[in-house]
Amino acid sequence: MPSRFELANAIRALSMDAVQKAKSGHPGAPMGMADIAEVLWNDYLKHNPANPHWADRDRFVLSNGHGSMLLYSLLHLTGYELTLEDLQNFRQLHSKTPGHPELGYTPGVETTTGPLGQGLANAVGMAIAERTLAAQFNQPGHDIIDHHTYVFLGDGCLMEGISHEACSLAGTQGLGKLTAFYDDNGISIDGEVEGWFTDDTAKRFEAYGWHVVPNVDGHNPEEIRAAIELARNHGERPSLIICKTVIGFGAPNKQGTEECHGSPLGEHEIEAAREQLGWKHAPFHVPEEIYKGWDATARGQQAEQDWNERLERYEQAHPELAKELKRRLKGDLPTTLNSEKLIEDAQERGESIASRKASLACLNALGPQLPELFGGSADLAPSNLTFWKDARAINRDHHGGNYLHYGVREFAMGAIMNGIGAHGGFIPYGATFLTFMEYMHNAVRLAALMNQQAIYVFTHDSIGLGEDGPTHQPIEQMGALRSTPNLSTWRPADAVETAVAWRSAIKRRGAPTALVLSRQNLPHQQRDQQQLAEIRRGGYVLKDSDDPAEVILIATGSEVGLAMEAAGALEAKGKAVRVVSLPSTDTFDAQPASYRESVLPPSNTPRVAIEASHYAYWYKYVGLNGRIIAMHSFGESAPAADLFKYYGFTVENVVEQVEQLLEETATA
Amino acid sequence: MPSRFELANAIRALSMDAVQKAKSGHPGAPMGMADIAEVLWNDYLKHNPANPHWADRDRFVLSNGHGSMLLYSLLHLTGYELTLEDLQNFRQLHSKTPGHPELGYTPGVETTTGPLGQGLANAVGMAIAERTLAAQFNQPGHDIIDHHTYVFLGDGCLMEGISHEACSLAGTQGLGKLTAFYDDNGISIDGEVEGWFTDDTAKRFEAYGWHVVPNVDGHNPEEIRAAIELARNHGERPSLIICKTVIGFGAPNKQGTEECHGSPLGEHEIEAAREQLGWKHAPFHVPEEIYKGWDATARGQQAEQDWNERLERYEQAHPELAKELKRRLKGDLPTTLNSEKLIEDAQERGESIASRKASLACLNALGPQLPELFGGSADLAPSNLTFWKDARAINRDHHGGNYLHYGVREFAMGAIMNGIGAHGGFIPYGATFLTFMEYMHNAVRLAALMNQQAIYVFTHDSIGLGEDGPTHQPIEQMGALRSTPNLSTWRPADAVETAVAWRSAIKRRGAPTALVLSRQNLPHQQRDQQQLAEIRRGGYVLKDSDDPAEVILIATGSEVGLAMEAAGALEAKGKAVRVVSLPSTDTFDAQPASYRESVLPPSNTPRVAIEASHYAYWYKYVGLNGRIIAMHSFGESAPAADLFKYYGFTVENVVEQVEQLLEETATA
Repeated sequence: MPSRFELANAIRALSMDAVQKAKSGHPGAPMGMADIAEVLWNDYLKHNPANPHWADRDRFVLSNGHGSMLLYSLLHLTGYELTLEDLQNFRQLHSKTPGHPELGYTPGVETTTGPLGQGLANAVGMAIAERTLAAQFNQPGHDIIDHHTYVFLGDGCLMEGISHEACSLAGTQGLGKLTAFYDDNGISIDGEVEGWFTDDTAKRFEAYGWHVVPNVDGHNPEEIRAAIELARNHGERPSLIICKTVIGFGAPNKQGTEECHGSPLGEHEIEAAREQLGWKHAPFHVPEEIYKGWDATARGQQAEQDWNERLERYEQAHPELAKELKRRLKGDLPTTLNSEKLIEDAQERGESIASRKASLACLNALGPQLPELFGGSADLAPSNLTFWKDARAINRDHHGGNYLHYGVREFAMGAIMNGIGAHGGFIPYGATFLTFMEYMHNAVRLAALMNQQAIYVFTHDSIGLGEDGPTHQPIEQMGALRSTPNLSTWRPADAVETAVAWRSAIKRRGAPTALVLSRQNLPHQQRDQQQLAEIRRGGYVLKDSDDPAEVILIATGSEVGLAMEAAGALEAKGKAVRVVSLPSTDTFDAQPASYRESVLPPSNTPRVAIEASHYAYWYKYVGLNGRIIAMHSFGESAPAADLFKYYGFTVENVVEQVEQLLEETATA
Repeated sequence: MPSRFELANAIRALSMDAVQKAKSGHPGAPMGMADIAEVLWNDYLKHNPANPHWADRDRFVLSNGHGSMLLYSLLHLTGYELTLEDLQNFRQLHSKTPGHPELGYTPGVETTTGPLGQGLANAVGMAIAERTLAAQFNQPGHDIIDHHTYVFLGDGCLMEGISHEACSLAGTQGLGKLTAFYDDNGISIDGEVEGWFTDDTAKRFEAYGWHVVPNVDGHNPEEIRAAIELARNHGERPSLIICKTVIGFGAPNKQGTEECHGSPLGEHEIEAAREQLGWKHAPFHVPEEIYKGWDATARGQQAEQDWNERLERYEQAHPELAKELKRRLKGDLPTTLNSEKLIEDAQERGESIASRKASLACLNALGPQLPELFGGSADLAPSNLTFWKDARAINRDHHGGNYLHYGVREFAMGAIMNGIGAHGGFIPYGATFLTFMEYMHNAVRLAALMNQQAIYVFTHDSIGLGEDGPTHQPIEQMGALRSTPNLSTWRPADAVETAVAWRSAIKRRGAPTALVLSRQNLPHQQRDQQQLAEIRRGGYVLKDSDDPAEVILIATGSEVGLAMEAAGALEAKGKAVRVVSLPSTDTFDAQPASYRESVLPPSNTPRVAIEASHYAYWYKYVGLNGRIIAMHSFGESAPAADLFKYYGFTVENVVEQVEQLLEETATA
């Protein structure tokens, strides 16, 4: 039987070999955290390598994602479908072992990490999902959802602001089944952290209400075991285990320095490390008895089988609940869901209301049908209108709600939503002002990269928010959202388009959607049945002319009403005008060319785009010969009406711009 | 002589009146913090209302910027050029009193606040600037730079992650002249914060190494005074004064609740508050004796005069230093600065190096000439290459350097840079990977909004960074930067363009610049004198054809080399090709039409854009009938060469796309 140290050395050897072969990567963290990982994975982690999707598995997150070879080594050694060849293809195109852990690439990887601090917040989200799902489904004698969330993190994660947001909230929520392991190795990329990071981290986390186990020797399995036992016995508070480690442990000349953080050790140092560690095996060679010591397949199969039996008993005792749980875990929408009704109702009501208010109506309609909806706002619920009529906030005493008051923590909200989504069983939505999307920007990006459903309610979508001024008025944000691959963005023109946007967001199971909503009222637009049906194509002809159009006005959101008014004024002057409402450019772009060309014909009909956000994006639809009525600067603090006038969002200006354009085109 | 309470009530009355008149705004914070402000401003703050730009004034930052009427009241009452009429125009277009404090709009406003947490980080930057400038210029017996930084903040600021980043760093740095006042009123927009914010804030800040004065009654002037005295006596550590306050203090029915946070109190409640406070005066009326109690003009004039006399003595003792200090404070570049030499040297060397490395060469050349350069990186100095040869890091013991190891704290870095810039005396630059610009995005935006010079060194600018994979590979970031008003963005193609970009960034005194740089080597491009001179126009013809061009290739950064190679291949096939290098679209857009049209003629010559970032932005230059060879998805983890090939950044693909386009155009 190999010793724990020998087992851990398998991680060290595979990590340094793979980084060396790839000629890039991070050997330091895997070698430093190998002993901690060995104890956690071999003695505690509940998982089944044969089924990485088993619902009641413990979740493991490597927040210091640059140490990806630690995770790949663990998955390989414990029996996941990840071969030695996969490890040898570390960091190569289309391998299962990308440079950082990427959700969907590797069996057993729970979330994409690398952007520091976010894995930790993902883990908080997973722990929230576990506790909420347990509260919603567990019954006396049937703890059918009951697993732990473990997260490894480094100095970088702890310096990032998101660690504050996420851990403060985790403490307030009392997430007792969350355990974090801090790789306290004193090194970051610039060198020894004492020059820039001198927090008393134990005290900091105690201030958040965490249970802290300080001063654990991260290379001593007994101390690590004892710490994990303490953590698991603290059911009311999340635990932080502070492990003193040596980065690059085992590399005699580089360990303990930044030199082993982010580049291959080099052949010579690897040889010396093999010597130092007593690891006599060839590169990428792991002896059979080491594999045996790691193999978790039998234990994992047994654990899942036990759970399946418990699930059967649960099913017998609570058939309806069990059916619903299975649906939720599978990620199917309820067959009873009637999202068309959202649209019909909005159409029938024909209200001229703010799209944020129309969004609340959607939530009130969807909420009762969709118990998996899990909402929240970064302390702007009364402004974002996300706290729907049956929303119930979770807290440390009441776990079974469907809403989280995130506090003023946008970035943590985004990353926690990703964790909730990655856990499964929920559709997370979260809200802030569109401008403050920037505080959470990289979490939105990661949702898109991870193919995670997440619904962002971004209200106060333009200068139309008025007096709060330029710090709060979005300009460049729409372009940023629209240029994020795999993110769908909607800026609806009225309550009906808002309903279509919510419907689309709910049905978009494998990717995130941003709903960009107004603070101010928007006029209801008349539509026939065909127009109503075409909204979901992202863009459609809202108003056409009898004669072939001389000009096409393209608008979104609050500017659609303006475009319609301007079209009326132009028609009164004898112009033939088409108005295209384009609430979702990405959805429109994904339509067949025949449809797109029916809306925006590839003729030379001049086009004018109108949107109270940055102008640059609109060349995509009007080309070099069109006009763009949009923002070229930041906004100002003033009542909304004054601002729209000041920046040219008036019927007069649109008419004038169109007339100028038609004149230019005629003389060209 | 009016009592302190009466003086403070002037703030309360003006704030509730102005919010009421504007029909929007935030009365709660000004009314809650009025007593604290009264003590600080009347007893301690060193400032001269007649000269808001006096260099040695104390800095005051309202990080909870929504409470802007607190600051406007203080400025009005103490004698700044801010009239009652200005207060009555609160939140109106082009008034001096926008909804949130905006730098440049109001005399005495030191920084733009509102996006929560950033004002606090600005204050940290100001304290760093003060201490660094003092260390660089003060001489025995001549403490010519010697002022305090005070910052007010609320629960929202403390929940934001940036408060962790900034305050952790402030603790490590030992910024003893920074004092923060926490408005601990227990209320945020969603309601009572105990549901989502339960930090032991005193303990948290002690963990950062701050000096904390807890449990101060924020309505008791004596306790406030005592706390400030304690803070001022702690020279080695920043101080946090935790003031228990009642939000909306004085409004009998709304105080202590979220109802008074963000909307007018209403006529009735204002009347009741007047009653409760014993403030018998009409709206916007402040009795003369109250004005007298507040008037800081004489004291301020005296203080500045004393300082001017001290400056004269300093000048006599240290004429060269004094001259240099005056230049630095004025914000003039040295007359000896030779930034042209950067370009000449790069041209002469003709090196094919990574633009991040070319950037380091610029820093090595600029640094010795520009002692105001104050650098840093968010723990990526060895990757961003920002630690130039004479860079010296400041720390708690050594204050006189020119570099800050920010740690893994991108957002704080951005906001601290804004604080350093707003303080004056420095040109801050700071670095991270381009993708992680998103972590600091809103601080970049605020630099642009505030007209602050700041230079961002964003390296690892595309899939060209290779193996670290899609979490690290920027796609949509270029479009976001280019769509930020007032931000200049450069993505240079080689070392020569990098030198031009640095020169432009240094000379752009009133606005920020983003330098987007490659990890990988870029080939040096041949240029004649005219081309060399035209780089600074942001776009220019790098290679032209003898015959009129049949196609124009437009590229930036690492794709310029590709465009040049493709042009060669196309020429070999008999095509006439122009290549335009467009390192800075905003700079190019700002050129006269005649120049722009000389580079990109408004004829129908087909255009092809090539850039390894998101495609959408490029319609702006190629229109609807061009081609865009760019990214449509996230990247992958693989060696850079494999990625460029996989995503079509090859000579073969460019040639093929051009040929297809020419065929289409011919048949159209």
